[in-house]
Amino acid sequence: MSEARDYKVIGTRVVRPDGVDKVTGRANFGADFSLPGMLYGKVLRSPHAHARIKKIDTDAAAKIEGVYAIVTGADFPKVGHEEITGGEGAGDFADLATNVMARDKVVYHGHAVAAVAAKTSAIADAALAAIKVDYEQLAPVMDLDTAMADNATLIDERLFTAGLPEKPTKPSNVAAYMEFKRGDIAQGFAQADVVVEGTYRTPTVHQGYIEPHACVASINQGGQATIWCCTQGHFDVRSMTSKVLGMNVADIRVIPSEIGGGFGGKTTIYLEPVAMVLSKKSGRPVKMTMTRDEVFRASGPASATKCTIKIGAKKDGTFTAMSAWLAYEAGGYKGSSMAPGAMCVFAPYVVPHFLIQGYDVLVNKPKVAAYRAPGAPQSMYACESLIDDLARQLKIDPIDLRLKNAVSAGSQAAYGPKFNAVGFKECLEAAKKHPNYTKKLGPNEGRGLAAGFWFNAGMQSSAEVHINENGTVTVVEGSPDIGGSRASMALMAAEELGVPYERVRVVVADTENAGYNNVTGGSRVTFATGMAVIQAAGDIIAQCKQRAAATWGIEADLVDWKDGEAIPKPGVNADVKPLTLAQIAANSGRTGGPLLGRASLNARGAGPGFSINMADVRVDPETGKVDVLRFTAIQDAGKAIHPAYVEGQMQGGAVQGIGWALNEEYIYDSKGVMQNAGFLDYRMPVASDLPMIDTQIIEVPNPSHPYGVRGVGEVPIVAPLAAVANAVRAATGIRIPDLPLSPPRVLAALEAAKA
Amino acid sequence: MSEARDYKVIGTRVVRPDGVDKVTGRANFGADFSLPGMLYGKVLRSPHAHARIKKIDTDAAAKIEGVYAIVTGADFPKVGHEEITGGEGAGDFADLATNVMARDKVVYHGHAVAAVAAKTSAIADAALAAIKVDYEQLAPVMDLDTAMADNATLIDERLFTAGLPEKPTKPSNVAAYMEFKRGDIAQGFAQADVVVEGTYRTPTVHQGYIEPHACVASINQGGQATIWCCTQGHFDVRSMTSKVLGMNVADIRVIPSEIGGGFGGKTTIYLEPVAMVLSKKSGRPVKMTMTRDEVFRASGPASATKCTIKIGAKKDGTFTAMSAWLAYEAGGYKGSSMAPGAMCVFAPYVVPHFLIQGYDVLVNKPKVAAYRAPGAPQSMYACESLIDDLARQLKIDPIDLRLKNAVSAGSQAAYGPKFNAVGFKECLEAAKKHPNYTKKLGPNEGRGLAAGFWFNAGMQSSAEVHINENGTVTVVEGSPDIGGSRASMALMAAEELGVPYERVRVVVADTENAGYNNVTGGSRVTFATGMAVIQAAGDIIAQCKQRAAATWGIEADLVDWKDGEAIPKPGVNADVKPLTLAQIAANSGRTGGPLLGRASLNARGAGPGFSINMADVRVDPETGKVDVLRFTAIQDAGKAIHPAYVEGQMQGGAVQGIGWALNEEYIYDSKGVMQNAGFLDYRMPVASDLPMIDTQIIEVPNPSHPYGVRGVGEVPIVAPLAAVANAVRAATGIRIPDLPLSPPRVLAALEAAKA
Repeated sequence: MSEARDYKVIGTRVVRPDGVDKVTGRANFGADFSLPGMLYGKVLRSPHAHARIKKIDTDAAAKIEGVYAIVTGADFPKVGHEEITGGEGAGDFADLATNVMARDKVVYHGHAVAAVAAKTSAIADAALAAIKVDYEQLAPVMDLDTAMADNATLIDERLFTAGLPEKPTKPSNVAAYMEFKRGDIAQGFAQADVVVEGTYRTPTVHQGYIEPHACVASINQGGQATIWCCTQGHFDVRSMTSKVLGMNVADIRVIPSEIGGGFGGKTTIYLEPVAMVLSKKSGRPVKMTMTRDEVFRASGPASATKCTIKIGAKKDGTFTAMSAWLAYEAGGYKGSSMAPGAMCVFAPYVVPHFLIQGYDVLVNKPKVAAYRAPGAPQSMYACESLIDDLARQLKIDPIDLRLKNAVSAGSQAAYGPKFNAVGFKECLEAAKKHPNYTKKLGPNEGRGLAAGFWFNAGMQSSAEVHINENGTVTVVEGSPDIGGSRASMALMAAEELGVPYERVRVVVADTENAGYNNVTGGSRVTFATGMAVIQAAGDIIAQCKQRAAATWGIEADLVDWKDGEAIPKPGVNADVKPLTLAQIAANSGRTGGPLLGRASLNARGAGPGFSINMADVRVDPETGKVDVLRFTAIQDAGKAIHPAYVEGQMQGGAVQGIGWALNEEYIYDSKGVMQNAGFLDYRMPVASDLPMIDTQIIEVPNPSHPYGVRGVGEVPIVAPLAAVANAVRAATGIRIPDLPLSPPRVLAALEAAKA
Repeated sequence: MSEARDYKVIGTRVVRPDGVDKVTGRANFGADFSLPGMLYGKVLRSPHAHARIKKIDTDAAAKIEGVYAIVTGADFPKVGHEEITGGEGAGDFADLATNVMARDKVVYHGHAVAAVAAKTSAIADAALAAIKVDYEQLAPVMDLDTAMADNATLIDERLFTAGLPEKPTKPSNVAAYMEFKRGDIAQGFAQADVVVEGTYRTPTVHQGYIEPHACVASINQGGQATIWCCTQGHFDVRSMTSKVLGMNVADIRVIPSEIGGGFGGKTTIYLEPVAMVLSKKSGRPVKMTMTRDEVFRASGPASATKCTIKIGAKKDGTFTAMSAWLAYEAGGYKGSSMAPGAMCVFAPYVVPHFLIQGYDVLVNKPKVAAYRAPGAPQSMYACESLIDDLARQLKIDPIDLRLKNAVSAGSQAAYGPKFNAVGFKECLEAAKKHPNYTKKLGPNEGRGLAAGFWFNAGMQSSAEVHINENGTVTVVEGSPDIGGSRASMALMAAEELGVPYERVRVVVADTENAGYNNVTGGSRVTFATGMAVIQAAGDIIAQCKQRAAATWGIEADLVDWKDGEAIPKPGVNADVKPLTLAQIAANSGRTGGPLLGRASLNARGAGPGFSINMADVRVDPETGKVDVLRFTAIQDAGKAIHPAYVEGQMQGGAVQGIGWALNEEYIYDSKGVMQNAGFLDYRMPVASDLPMIDTQIIEVPNPSHPYGVRGVGEVPIVAPLAAVANAVRAATGIRIPDLPLSPPRVLAALEAAKA
């Protein structure tokens, strides 16, 4: 990677290729696809949070005219236990199968128990109403304390905690334990001048993507199937559906639609196998779409957590020891984002002695899914809140305290590897210099600051580059565009090939047309798929050099590629005119056929991303309402390929983090039924709730990427929770450890403090 | 090419991959695609065969509720003259543009003059009825004799004959002249013991594909467009539409549907640019489908022809001279298949002196398109009929006469190049041995025999091979499957990779997903795209060797690929187990990422194809009806990749040729209006009209292809015309030179002979 590289288009704010279709309503999302003869599929969902299914009677439903198929768990194969890999989040294929359609037991309110396919949506509703299910109700286990209690009701009686140092002797709701440690924690705390500790809780929250899950599935009598759906990873939809249904991956083609938000929540499957089995049974294509209510109750929200953090420090602020006890709700099946939460919690800091303990815990809520930097916002909320209190106690500026302990190139991350160049200190220094850090505050106002971190992922990507006959460029890739990847891929291809951005078109191809790609997640696409695009463009350049060499009658290694043209290398004695990509393309039939480049890789060397967020809030002492007055997001992007998109990611993540901090939560009644499954009652921030999010991109290039790219999509959601909470602490003088800092909770804390 | 190669799957009759969907009605053809908000487009067509458009009044139509857009020629850009290349057939982009939508003049009955897009099909019909067009009628020019007459009405007053030895001084309906010649024709005829001559006419016939033309076009406000359509060449739809509309090819994505037959007739565009302009004007997607009536009147049938052939021969049958005068109707715009007709007419024979003269002639009929071996059936019908008469006159067996003059490896084809290994003599010898050649005939029965030839094409193809995570194989290619190419590509990929056929899936990708491919035509796909697939599979094998070598810690050039496994080369000292493709695929993430192969080429060395057809007919002396009793098709396939498909091609071509010989013709009234534009009146043969077509595949490998493939799709339609006509001659004793040999014509000839 050459830092001195003089970019032509990288770093410019070009027009996004999908913009026109999206703003004019022309873009086709998951629910916009239809086929001749298509039926409408709907799911019958459990009215109980925890129950055994004794009997399902579908006879009356089957008699309704226009009902073509009814399926229950009995229509799905038994799937063996096998860990799900390659995607985001965690889990097991056997659980995935019973999450998609319950068999003997329902483990959350909204769990699928049957489904129908009918000629119309109304007939499907009538059929659902006619299905009778006998349940044996069980006590719902709705929080971590209840679930982890010694005598807890067991959600899965065959589940023994994995990962414990000693083999467990009895089943438990704790599905897994893991730890990271270094040094001697007792010795570390003994060296400390001051030790602080706190316990923090975060609620179940949802990604809140605008577009509900939707798909059309069609399987023919030969067993060959096509699924159209909105997803972050159509190769994962293919592999997961094949596992759940016992099919050959080669028999399933998955075509991704445009995606109306995912944020990790569209990295798994819900409707797809159900639509497939309905299609098989009915002999027709079947469309299924979730309502918003179903999205809340039966897709995958983020874990509620309980985290206890303890930090020991010298008077000068040097950390001597840190410990974290992290419990993450998994929902009805095992597999939360506890592990990445544990990886991230202390990642920004150098500390000689630490112990991180993580617990993955079953509760009777929907199985969690990935949510933007999965696991990190919760654990780092706890740690960054406690550091804020420590700074106050030590009377050290919170930026200086972090700078004193900050990791840099060569530091060993708490989760294992040594950091290469990272931009944490650069973010802290930028925050210190930022005018928003010293703006004057008024009464009831407070300023909070916190750090964010995400390790970012590499994983497998493929790309192909086709040169059209007029020299325009088509990039074929298999990573759904959830955050501007078509623009960034086009920029990278244009940069490499030396052609204008406008001459490059990027297409997100389906599982049959694209080479294999891991999920769009982990902030990996611009990094890894981008690298594949760069290499595929390099393949084209190599071919262009050969074509030019053949045209000129010289050796290919005497040809250079510069500014979109083949030229003889300096000193080569060839009296020839440069050949542009368009000229080589126009002549390609005579020089060996179409120009077609490809690359695939398993990308190594993803660049970890750090951020500092600052929030200014005003707390209304009469209502407890918190208003965010200013919000500043500072983040190391490595190299911002398309700065406006990077800023958009920073702003979007900030808004989601602010919602998590202030208002969002699943509210359950005593029977485990969610009470606020709609956007009127589940309060996500809207534009009028928010100030402009100020952004500052820091660029400390990732040495492992040709342009220095780090992932940028996930870091932005990590720091806002603690930044806002620390601001509320500053404004009120009260540390409220549990999120959300909603008006009732803040008001109660204010009143308790007064009393 | 190794003839000794021991094939594992090549040459087997595997199940076709598209069969289930096609027989169950699941396959989606051109008209099966729909989009939200889509409108229905329809075309107003000229009621006159030849007229000037004085005025088009669309005001009343525009006022109809539900009409969203009306377009006429004024809505289309002016397109410069430029020859259409890369496809099948011939022509000029300026003509293509006015054929798609007339401007000042209509040149055939059914010519498009306006189009509407409306909410429903019925509203669109009402709008068409409300459009008023003022025409100035001109005399229609409906046949070659009229068109070529000195004082003919001119269809295009600015048209001067191209290709003449001397520059023409006045415009003409003859658009082009070309000739092939060798030796001294006068000297050749002077050396002959016998000279025969005949003039033969063939009618306008249609390819008769089951599926009418259909498309959906959608263009957004940013100018980016998608076209879904049935076509033999979506890259040609893209390039032609971009030329006709002045768009950038990169702004048009063309997605090919399944195709319900094309036979050359779907190598050009009709509705696509019209739907696009309607979409642009209405801001909505627009679907257009032709009725059968429109297909007959306004798509591209095959040329009617008039051919005069003259042959001089020694008594022993040795040809001394041949001449051909070939006139081909082009329809309302220039560009018939006269040139390939001229290339093929004498191609099977060695003759020292010949002259072939071809004429491309405008008439007031729809612009012709390619039809299976375009041009060859007509000219070779004439030549093979005359050779039949010559054999009778010389009292030489018609097979022996052809064997005496037949080309073989090293012969110089009449159209220029030297033949490499060809199988003409092998076909003739097989015919002679065939039991059908000596079966006894009854009263009013006759046997006819004729040769067929097609040079076959190469052209540009691309292919990609993706290996899925379970080792299954996806081949991505861009040649629409009109005759089984998905099966043959899968067989070739399976053979190369050493995996079972069932593990390979082939997808025909759109213009954005596939590398560039020329049209599916010229019998080029199994040859050229197949070669690209073989090379792309080779790319995969090379990568697999590298992955295996890396796994084993040896050099890649020490690894062999055999029976789907990487193994160390003999003698290599490596104690390792073979790695299957599936094992390498499963591990590919750890060895460098997904396996992705690609190849592109401009294929050279297409293998010319020869055939001998034999027909036994019975002629009803009372009605003139000809029944085909037996039909035998013998053809050199080079190497039959999938013999059942090859036989299917031979049978299908025979049936189309029989229809051409016996019944099919455009019947016009005196005003140039076709009288039989429907399958009830345009008599194509149906199953009950036909015997089983007997086939015999000859395999003389093409030395330029790894497996020896020649094209097989076009040769089969060439010989049946003369074979049937020669059989009728044999049955009746009367040579009827003009096709079709329909009951009225045969009866008239029988009665004339009696009189």
